[in-house]
Amino acid sequence: MNWLDEINWDENGLVPVIAQEHGTNKVLMFAWMNREALAETNSTKQAVYWSRSRKKLWRKGEESGHVQTVHDIRLDCDEDVILLSVEQAGGIACHTGRHHCFFKILHNDQWRIDQPVIKNPEDIYKPVA
Amino acid sequence: MNWLDEINWDENGLVPVIAQEHGTNKVLMFAWMNREALAETNSTKQAVYWSRSRKKLWRKGEESGHVQTVHDIRLDCDEDVILLSVEQAGGIACHTGRHHCFFKILHNDQWRIDQPVIKNPEDIYKPVA
Repeated sequence: MNWLDEINWDENGLVPVIAQEHGTNKVLMFAWMNREALAETNSTKQAVYWSRSRKKLWRKGEESGHVQTVHDIRLDCDEDVILLSVEQAGGIACHTGRHHCFFKILHNDQWRIDQPVIKNPEDIYKPVA
Repeated sequence: MNWLDEINWDENGLVPVIAQEHGTNKVLMFAWMNREALAETNSTKQAVYWSRSRKKLWRKGEESGHVQTVHDIRLDCDEDVILLSVEQAGGIACHTGRHHCFFKILHNDQWRIDQPVIKNPEDIYKPVA
């Protein structure tokens, strides 16, 4: 049996994906993959997601250079969630220029930002000349 | 503004939730919450999810005793994913009796189980007499 067939893809042919930093175990980001994205992620060892807003493959880092090198790929008990362990190029996983996307923490019923911007997004995503 | 109103709930009124172990940062499980579940999670500091299959609140550990005490609640950049840091009672988050749900790892294009069963599920979920 093909390992991709063992995944319980949702009604849109997608599976939720958690990307975790190899070594620290920090959760960097959350995204989605379709079958093609997961197959390419495994064959290239570079994280490829499915962009639901752009409706196309999203090769993480293709614009920013902040690629994710995949250390291992895990599947959960219900076979419907993927967990990646990755090495994050540039130490920046978030499009806001932060290390990870979960930079808002609830404190006294208010969301507070507790992670610094490492690089200005305008310097990450340079317009094509 | 109410902190719950800042969350981008999906078309079903849900948000995906990642539960991570406080201290080790291991990802224990993935589930969903509705507004009521997240509000109760914050007020009680015990993880409460929304069971999509049973269509009701799922107070984690209500049958097994494997409750999750919430250390902190994080929100991502797009305000549509929650990350919980929790202390896992019994050290068992998965209904299979394992520490966490991501016990299948891809190796040579095959899923392999690399985590032991800590407690037999039949001993966790005892039938009501």
